[in-house]
Amino acid sequence: MSHSTRCAACKSLRRRCRKDCVLAPYFPPTNPQRFACVHKIFGASNITKMLEQLPLHLRAVAADCMSFEASSRVEDPVYGSVGIISQLQEQIIEAQSELVKTKSEIAFHNAQQQL
Amino acid sequence: MSHSTRCAACKSLRRRCRKDCVLAPYFPPTNPQRFACVHKIFGASNITKMLEQLPLHLRAVAADCMSFEASSRVEDPVYGSVGIISQLQEQIIEAQSELVKTKSEIAFHNAQQQL
Repeated sequence: MSHSTRCAACKSLRRRCRKDCVLAPYFPPTNPQRFACVHKIFGASNITKMLEQLPLHLRAVAADCMSFEASSRVEDPVYGSVGIISQLQEQIIEAQSELVKTKSEIAFHNAQQQL
Repeated sequence: MSHSTRCAACKSLRRRCRKDCVLAPYFPPTNPQRFACVHKIFGASNITKMLEQLPLHLRAVAADCMSFEASSRVEDPVYGSVGIISQLQEQIIEAQSELVKTKSEIAFHNAQQQL
């Protein structure tokens, strides 16, 4: 038996979409771009393998994360999702140094008050 | 002409390592694990394609980022590098909320001093 409407993966790979298609629940035909992206970066067989190795209840999150990683790499072919990690690390350093500065202001206020 | 020592990619794929091998500069035979990881996640032909599409001076960084992404996904097959992004976002929210708290303490000090 096959789905009445093929999923984005089977449509793109020009094959029948079987009822037990591993990719169908996570790559609906309404969003061909989502599959095109993971296909370009990971390849269809890798995505299928990676999803198959996970228990069913974790596959939707994994597919979302892989889609995010793939689209990050399409947008930024050099840094990919690592570029986002670097930006966030910089933001943390900034926030932490502002925190240190602000705490030292408090210490100064406290010292002044005691005088 | 081929390299006297095959790179990790050519060794793993059991092929000759040509002088112009795209992967050789970034996947030395001394670190077979690094290639095994990107091969498992992206596939050798995808990595080659992705590197070929970049100018030479950006390929080393791109290979490092892809290796990082791949090893993150091997370590955490559900969240991959997106798991690190989520953790960092939580850290930023924490640091920012501590900053707001600390700044309101300063405002309180200032108000007290004026009284």
